[in-house]
Amino acid sequence: MPKKSEGGITAKKGKNFSEWFTQIVQKCELADLRYNVKGFLVFQPWSVICMEKMYDYLEKNLQKKGHKPYWFPTVIPESNLEKESEHLGGFTPELFWVTQAGKTKLDEKLALRPTSETAFYQMFGLWIRSYNDLPFKTYQRANIFRCDTKATRPFLRGREFHWIETHCAHASEEKAFKQVKEDMKTTKEVLHDIFGIPFIFFERPSWDKFPGAARTFAADALNPDGKLIQQPSTHMISPTFSKAFDVKFKDKNGKEKYAYLTCYGPAISRIFASVIITHGDDKGLKFPWEIAPLQVAIIPIDKKLNKKAESLKKEIEKFASVEIDFSDKRPGEKFNYWEMKGVPIRIDLGLKDFQKKKITLFRRDLNKKEIVDGRDTVKKIKQISKEFTKNLIKEADKIFKGKIKQAKNLKEIKSAIKQGSIACCNWCSVEKEGEKCAEVIEKEIGSEVRGTRLDERSNVKKTCAICGKSAKHIVYIAKSY
Amino acid sequence: MPKKSEGGITAKKGKNFSEWFTQIVQKCELADLRYNVKGFLVFQPWSVICMEKMYDYLEKNLQKKGHKPYWFPTVIPESNLEKESEHLGGFTPELFWVTQAGKTKLDEKLALRPTSETAFYQMFGLWIRSYNDLPFKTYQRANIFRCDTKATRPFLRGREFHWIETHCAHASEEKAFKQVKEDMKTTKEVLHDIFGIPFIFFERPSWDKFPGAARTFAADALNPDGKLIQQPSTHMISPTFSKAFDVKFKDKNGKEKYAYLTCYGPAISRIFASVIITHGDDKGLKFPWEIAPLQVAIIPIDKKLNKKAESLKKEIEKFASVEIDFSDKRPGEKFNYWEMKGVPIRIDLGLKDFQKKKITLFRRDLNKKEIVDGRDTVKKIKQISKEFTKNLIKEADKIFKGKIKQAKNLKEIKSAIKQGSIACCNWCSVEKEGEKCAEVIEKEIGSEVRGTRLDERSNVKKTCAICGKSAKHIVYIAKSY
Repeated sequence: MPKKSEGGITAKKGKNFSEWFTQIVQKCELADLRYNVKGFLVFQPWSVICMEKMYDYLEKNLQKKGHKPYWFPTVIPESNLEKESEHLGGFTPELFWVTQAGKTKLDEKLALRPTSETAFYQMFGLWIRSYNDLPFKTYQRANIFRCDTKATRPFLRGREFHWIETHCAHASEEKAFKQVKEDMKTTKEVLHDIFGIPFIFFERPSWDKFPGAARTFAADALNPDGKLIQQPSTHMISPTFSKAFDVKFKDKNGKEKYAYLTCYGPAISRIFASVIITHGDDKGLKFPWEIAPLQVAIIPIDKKLNKKAESLKKEIEKFASVEIDFSDKRPGEKFNYWEMKGVPIRIDLGLKDFQKKKITLFRRDLNKKEIVDGRDTVKKIKQISKEFTKNLIKEADKIFKGKIKQAKNLKEIKSAIKQGSIACCNWCSVEKEGEKCAEVIEKEIGSEVRGTRLDERSNVKKTCAICGKSAKHIVYIAKSY
Repeated sequence: MPKKSEGGITAKKGKNFSEWFTQIVQKCELADLRYNVKGFLVFQPWSVICMEKMYDYLEKNLQKKGHKPYWFPTVIPESNLEKESEHLGGFTPELFWVTQAGKTKLDEKLALRPTSETAFYQMFGLWIRSYNDLPFKTYQRANIFRCDTKATRPFLRGREFHWIETHCAHASEEKAFKQVKEDMKTTKEVLHDIFGIPFIFFERPSWDKFPGAARTFAADALNPDGKLIQQPSTHMISPTFSKAFDVKFKDKNGKEKYAYLTCYGPAISRIFASVIITHGDDKGLKFPWEIAPLQVAIIPIDKKLNKKAESLKKEIEKFASVEIDFSDKRPGEKFNYWEMKGVPIRIDLGLKDFQKKKITLFRRDLNKKEIVDGRDTVKKIKQISKEFTKNLIKEADKIFKGKIKQAKNLKEIKSAIKQGSIACCNWCSVEKEGEKCAEVIEKEIGSEVRGTRLDERSNVKKTCAICGKSAKHIVYIAKSY
């Protein structure tokens, strides 16, 4: 049930994105930041209901692709993390440690999982025996903990977040790479085609890999302030892991081999941030139909129509979530409230319409009122529900595409970044020898080389935008979170 | 896909329940106990898929009753726990403490939540303003942590477990009590009517309350070893909590009052234990239809019928989860395997049947084969699916009912307990003055007074089974975990 309105969004998304986002989180009651541990927040129903739906889409997609669900412990013993030094090194500054139970000091410190490779692989070592067991595809829905030292921002960067992590073992490097591509496909099918978030999947340069990965691939979405925000990443895990955790299998000839490991991590709370940032506008939230916390709100403008509202609700709840706003606010306030909350369809039940056997629908995808014949209400809602997310995607894709600018040199890169765009240019190398050019970018423009696209690996016959040497790659450069 | 069979269950449920349970957990691959932190285990797909369905039923039921979902932080600062001394005292020996982040010692220790009253109430104090906000009904799906010093047992008693906790605030004690009754109803609707677990909901005696509760109500289910296992409990929280956390509201006259708090906690992993213990038999698991990890298994006995199996699968997956066992095990092994795994319906596709246009179904509810006309297969499966859980419930209720024995004195109580039953007798008092008689029971029979039933509050004109003084109550006595 709607609570008292505390006024609408006053900040403009395009002009003051940061303030707009803060207002959205607070005024739409997505999360309360007043919990008394820094970086930990309370997720409220309006975000949780949506994120539960997001979990559902992701989990069903993974299950269809053969991933089996597990629940692993939240705590990982220090000795597990120590087995792979690069991984431990990468996470050490961010680990929360449990050192005490009751009044007793623990013999071994337990980390709150920052990710679960070192928990899963230990069990993989026990479970996997032969090539028949491969591919071994798992996933878990879990909350993870990173005491990130950077500034926390609700949903985007917190110290506890809710995610899915998949961990897989394969018989060969080729098969592991196929898994990486499958993970990219999953991201496209769910994050883009259902949640409506445009992104580019990059292979990260060698100096920007996940601690413990041989190759790192990550999706980047774009915020209106021109900063990229990393969304799901997928990794070819370094062979040192299967050795450290003894993840071996017997091949068809009975020969023992180490398995090839991959992992994929969609962070639900951060994806939620991209959903609201991508689709929201100056009025407030705008949810894709499929994951809206509420799909239809009915506003009886006149009390005489309360009964009509109830009967309409009964019809609609057969195929969509629906509520009637019986609060004592003025109709105008109610309209603004539900637009701010991002409900896809609002039904304004007024007496004048009713006498003409008409009904007014407000659709948030196009921010447009449509007056329909009363008997066609349900049919019309069903029709809108089918177009709704497509309209959001079309709009989002258009904006995203317009933000990619070709650049030939540092000056053009600078100018693209200044406009809040992503610069695309030729690049000498994404291996160690190219890091120097990346440092120039970092120093001069405060931006990063986000990586290369797998579908842009044709021979590049140009020169590097920075050093002028022959270019092997096309890379994308932007600011990031 | 089925893995290599590691042999069936050899222990008898009735004779050696403990060994039977251990074998079930391992051989049916419900959980792996080899994770290297004591009391923490890895839940495997066969239990997780079922528990996810259990979550779904419980959450939908709670949502229908107006509870809104939240995600609270996993960590609770020490100062929150210190606000209510009885609560802290009750949990102190069981708390896991985070004391360090990276290499830095934290200013304030953070407990891994053992339950979340002290997290929710702090926010209730901020959110609740007026009688209009009440009842304020919340819930969260969460994992909680208790470093229980007793022996851990998979699913029954662990150090991290998965549960739902509801926290509510009400305008009066009467309304809080109504919530307790609603929680009992929820337990009946879900745990009994869908999961098929028989139980009695007791009000616990005053000496056995939740730390911080004014009144504690808890459901007890029965294991075949005659021990009761506590299932969901619901509590009228002590008024000291609303004072400690300043949970106040303005009533209709503008007068400030403290809210009345209740909480309810169904522990999914433990309820899962009662599902498998209640319905399992000497062959293995037996899942209620609605929450079975897999509902139908198809066994093509002859390879010629593989295509038939595929087409059947396509028909069935429209309304049930179904898999074909293409492994190279012998048919007999496959039959045993799927019976052990508790799949409700098995389809045995044999050539002889096929030539006669018949199909053999094995239904695990009645452990019975049924030969049906091939064209009626789908119809028959749908019919069985509707009877299936009812049959399990009927059987479970019968056994449970037979385990309640009336007892007049210590000797009869002793004899009932010895038979693995629950003794029901008259009792002097469940307040402090009755604790002495409970100590006799504890000392002489190693059993506990589990409490009184709300629906047995008529005037008892008898005498206490222990002290012989006038009896105010009917109580139930049993061994417990």
